[in-house]
Amino acid sequence: MKKIGIVMGSDSDVPVIKKATAVLDDFKVPYEVHVYSAHRTPNEAREFAKNAEANDFGVIIAAAGMAAHLAGAIASETTLPVIGIPCKSTNLDGLDALLATVQMPSGIPVATVAIDGGANAAILAIQILALSDKRLAKKLQDKRVNDAKAVLEKDKNILEKLK
Amino acid sequence: MKKIGIVMGSDSDVPVIKKATAVLDDFKVPYEVHVYSAHRTPNEAREFAKNAEANDFGVIIAAAGMAAHLAGAIASETTLPVIGIPCKSTNLDGLDALLATVQMPSGIPVATVAIDGGANAAILAIQILALSDKRLAKKLQDKRVNDAKAVLEKDKNILEKLK
Amino acid sequence: MKKIGIVMGSDSDVPVIKKATAVLDDFKVPYEVHVYSAHRTPNEAREFAKNAEANDFGVIIAAAGMAAHLAGAIASETTLPVIGIPCKSTNLDGLDALLATVQMPSGIPVATVAIDGGANAAILAIQILALSDKRLAKKLQDKRVNDAKAVLEKDKNILEKLK
Amino acid sequence: MKKIGIVMGSDSDVPVIKKATAVLDDFKVPYEVHVYSAHRTPNEAREFAKNAEANDFGVIIAAAGMAAHLAGAIASETTLPVIGIPCKSTNLDGLDALLATVQMPSGIPVATVAIDGGANAAILAIQILALSDKRLAKKLQDKRVNDAKAVLEKDKNILEKLK
Amino acid sequence: MKKIGIVMGSDSDVPVIKKATAVLDDFKVPYEVHVYSAHRTPNEAREFAKNAEANDFGVIIAAAGMAAHLAGAIASETTLPVIGIPCKSTNLDGLDALLATVQMPSGIPVATVAIDGGANAAILAIQILALSDKRLAKKLQDKRVNDAKAVLEKDKNILEKLK
Amino acid sequence: MKKIGIVMGSDSDVPVIKKATAVLDDFKVPYEVHVYSAHRTPNEAREFAKNAEANDFGVIIAAAGMAAHLAGAIASETTLPVIGIPCKSTNLDGLDALLATVQMPSGIPVATVAIDGGANAAILAIQILALSDKRLAKKLQDKRVNDAKAVLEKDKNILEKLK
Amino acid sequence: MKKIGIVMGSDSDVPVIKKATAVLDDFKVPYEVHVYSAHRTPNEAREFAKNAEANDFGVIIAAAGMAAHLAGAIASETTLPVIGIPCKSTNLDGLDALLATVQMPSGIPVATVAIDGGANAAILAIQILALSDKRLAKKLQDKRVNDAKAVLEKDKNILEKLK
Amino acid sequence: MKKIGIVMGSDSDVPVIKKATAVLDDFKVPYEVHVYSAHRTPNEAREFAKNAEANDFGVIIAAAGMAAHLAGAIASETTLPVIGIPCKSTNLDGLDALLATVQMPSGIPVATVAIDGGANAAILAIQILALSDKRLAKKLQDKRVNDAKAVLEKDKNILEKLK
Repeated sequence: MKKIGIVMGSDSDVPVIKKATAVLDDFKVPYEVHVYSAHRTPNEAREFAKNAEANDFGVIIAAAGMAAHLAGAIASETTLPVIGIPCKSTNLDGLDALLATVQMPSGIPVATVAIDGGANAAILAIQILALSDKRLAKKLQDKRVNDAKAVLEKDKNILEKLK
Repeated sequence: MKKIGIVMGSDSDVPVIKKATAVLDDFKVPYEVHVYSAHRTPNEAREFAKNAEANDFGVIIAAAGMAAHLAGAIASETTLPVIGIPCKSTNLDGLDALLATVQMPSGIPVATVAIDGGANAAILAIQILALSDKRLAKKLQDKRVNDAKAVLEKDKNILEKLK
Repeated sequence: MKKIGIVMGSDSDVPVIKKATAVLDDFKVPYEVHVYSAHRTPNEAREFAKNAEANDFGVIIAAAGMAAHLAGAIASETTLPVIGIPCKSTNLDGLDALLATVQMPSGIPVATVAIDGGANAAILAIQILALSDKRLAKKLQDKRVNDAKAVLEKDKNILEKLK
Repeated sequence: MKKIGIVMGSDSDVPVIKKATAVLDDFKVPYEVHVYSAHRTPNEAREFAKNAEANDFGVIIAAAGMAAHLAGAIASETTLPVIGIPCKSTNLDGLDALLATVQMPSGIPVATVAIDGGANAAILAIQILALSDKRLAKKLQDKRVNDAKAVLEKDKNILEKLK
Repeated sequence: MKKIGIVMGSDSDVPVIKKATAVLDDFKVPYEVHVYSAHRTPNEAREFAKNAEANDFGVIIAAAGMAAHLAGAIASETTLPVIGIPCKSTNLDGLDALLATVQMPSGIPVATVAIDGGANAAILAIQILALSDKRLAKKLQDKRVNDAKAVLEKDKNILEKLK
Repeated sequence: MKKIGIVMGSDSDVPVIKKATAVLDDFKVPYEVHVYSAHRTPNEAREFAKNAEANDFGVIIAAAGMAAHLAGAIASETTLPVIGIPCKSTNLDGLDALLATVQMPSGIPVATVAIDGGANAAILAIQILALSDKRLAKKLQDKRVNDAKAVLEKDKNILEKLK
Repeated sequence: MKKIGIVMGSDSDVPVIKKATAVLDDFKVPYEVHVYSAHRTPNEAREFAKNAEANDFGVIIAAAGMAAHLAGAIASETTLPVIGIPCKSTNLDGLDALLATVQMPSGIPVATVAIDGGANAAILAIQILALSDKRLAKKLQDKRVNDAKAVLEKDKNILEKLK
Repeated sequence: MKKIGIVMGSDSDVPVIKKATAVLDDFKVPYEVHVYSAHRTPNEAREFAKNAEANDFGVIIAAAGMAAHLAGAIASETTLPVIGIPCKSTNLDGLDALLATVQMPSGIPVATVAIDGGANAAILAIQILALSDKRLAKKLQDKRVNDAKAVLEKDKNILEKLK
């Protein structure tokens, strides 16, 4: 199975990334995590991206805050699908990271998920891998069923919560 | 090869979708285009999404404006990767569609591209298919080279443009 | 008397919904509360909406955060009036939910109240039912009088508060 | 049948109101239209609101731009349901009117529709009246069917539009 | 000397108003404070505004949050200068109140100060009264001198603060 | 009678200022207009402000766009009331000018009116002068009556406009 | 004299860059202009930045729109001062480019000027070079004097413009 | 070596300025810090700016919040490069200060860094001085190397952090 590459711009993004790795662990999808800054370690970020396909990565997840260039910088060095997680930083509530991640110019897309959306980045990566992996596809459908059950369980007990 | 499903919420989104189909035509990737509104034809949107995998779609692109629920509604009925294009409508410069598309809750990701980003939605879809299609992967790399050449051509002639 | 249907997308919205049920309890208006996610349990949300009229609901209140599709999804399956409460989530201060709730396309309105506006959603629902229920209309007018008295009571004691 | 009261803050809002009256004409719902400014003619706006119930109005639609107080001002003088249409003015793309209309304090709701959403204001008003008028309820369902058909008609012809 | 009328929409605005009354106390400018809601007690707000000139008020300060209509509602009933303080509420960081206060239509101005700007509202009111009161004008100039001194005192001690 | 000083940061603001001078002409209030940039001619702006009181100005209106410092710069050099008009420039729809004008720090208020709100700046200035000028107060009340009549005239003819 | 390097992400930014080169021509400051996209030609952008100091550039100006990474990408490869011009694109009025340019993480600053602020980018670059070039410093002061004169000329003729 | 002038509008900006002085201390770049308010002490701010060049300052850093005029006011009185730090205040998350700092009109640039970006303001100032100071240029490159090492150190230990 292809691996998921996960790159965060700073280790302050760890709480967001943990939401991603928890999902990947659940799905038993192999991944590799790095802290590479688009600005402070551009070489490492670039080399990682350039060699990602050869190194058997299938999808790259990149998380960064503020003027969040990381996902775009990686996307410019590979034609693998790149998923961007805009991270909320101290100010502006993540709007800066969202716009810096999603508003990519024509030719170099970044598949952007919600602000701090670590879990969805992982699920999207798995959805992509699942196109050629029936086991994963099946597990995604199982997760949907379980997520639905969890909601319906809450529905059943809602009156107590409202007391 | 798997097909790309393209759904737009209204035919006012045709100019955005044309940017996507132009790319898909270039890459000779098969696609099917529909006008299904999440709100006015929820059944058709849902049936399309539910059967997408069985109907040999690999990725779905959904474009909508305003309270752009289409991509999310489709994503809730399939585990295929869903790419959302937020479309600029008359007011608010597309910010409403961007937030309504990208800020999906945990469990149901939408891979969001830039506002009116039809071309990038298509490229992202191709990047996903290319994971198991070497010909597409090669063409994506060729396109990168050509896009770069086009920029460098402009670079060569920039002094004239500045006169 | 027709019932009010209340649907929340996640039980994290309970504090907002409690403001609504407190008002409905005061007015002795019957209601039913559910946790149905537009994305994780689309079937249940849809079935609830489709059968709402037959099940003697008169108005539906839907509360959700982020890319808040719940009210719109319900509105697309019923012609009953649907009231949307955009809920503030971790980021963006509720602006995402507000725009995703209010900017509905032509044909499928959602009667949107303020961010986290649970009490007003309930009052609006009662105002709608009161059109054919004189007792409710009278109680609404009484509440107005009481609300005004409460303000004027505060006005009387304001000097102490300013000390 | 109860009438719909329509109030606009300025006759520059006529294009938005026309979208509402076109719907009401279609549904043969009686209405009365006024130009009353919350600020320039507060007495007339207030008197209209105060007497609306006695004058056999069932719902009031209020449209205004900028610091759009009209819907709130009317809502403060009646317990009838009040629907607010935030109108885009020269600047800020309607965001000012949206926030000034929807962010009502607890006790006095305004059922807010999309910026410039004249048609939806009318449909919402009809949905409210339809609770006690089976003919209207039937016509709303018919309109849904027709709206869906119109979308599917566009779906059928989409390939031509994409050429 | 004319009095300053101060009206707040809710007693949750007391902390903002205290900043105003502290300044007025310093300047020994007489004032009267009320809690009147534009929506819950429209009559009292209106009567206050209508009689303000006759009751020897010279300027009115109105503070409100969310869809902050209070200043505009008062301005529509008097030709006295009305100063609006947009108050930050739970969500949207006061942007809603700012736009609802400042974006008044032509004919009915509200002199808007910064979000939660209680002190400046009072100073502006005093500046207006000072046009025909030399003692106040002199005190305003004295305050400027003192404010400058306070800054320069901080300037002198800044190195310690930076340690 | 005291004069109104009007300062604009650039002559591109002339259309906004004309709305102010038209009102002042109507009210026969004397005024003086200048083009002084806070940044390009800080001396002239400052000198104007410093001498404004001595030169028999009663109120200063300052209009500027972008990082609109003009009103604040003038306010820092006089204790006369200063009215700020944020002007819409090429980008950002005037939001930059609004925030740069209204969000003044404690001690130095700017009485801010709506974006491009030239007429209201003039009316506010007149309201301030009218505190010690009964003729102006009377004319303001007359204008209110006439503005109301104009609205009601439009109300009378609205049905034709809706055809 | 050191040269100014000017890089634009796309030749659609030519109108903005022309405002910069016009200033540089006036000041007879040598410059070199390139079209290098951070995403489509990352190698060329990087090589330009890496060699900029050796190639006798003193300051680099980078202009880009949307998720404007160009200035940041260049800044990550040189310790020369980098000036960023956020360019307005089709949507969002340049807010995306502004945030993506200015919100740089600690360690890698971008000296950001106003949206589409080509002239100011050039002036800032000249101010930097002028620190070690008295002729440029003198010309900057002359320009200030001339800019002021131009404003005062407009001030002199303003009455005609207001007619 | 030329000195860096640092001016803050209020001593509440000390935490932001400390991030700047820490960097300058590291680089052994001399600096002088002042608290001068553009509005409360305009004379001192102006005199500081006017004499900055003669007093051997090379770059000025100005930090302010809300309607942050300080950097612009200083820039209008000197042709030295002025770096603006928009400071987050109580409301609006620093957006007001950002727009008031960066959106300067043509002729008077302010080199704006991120909201609360004290460290980057210092680095940018050093980059400017380093153009004529090889020792500083060398230290900047060393810092880059060290910053990169720190990131890579975090990269090495990331797995532990993710546990």
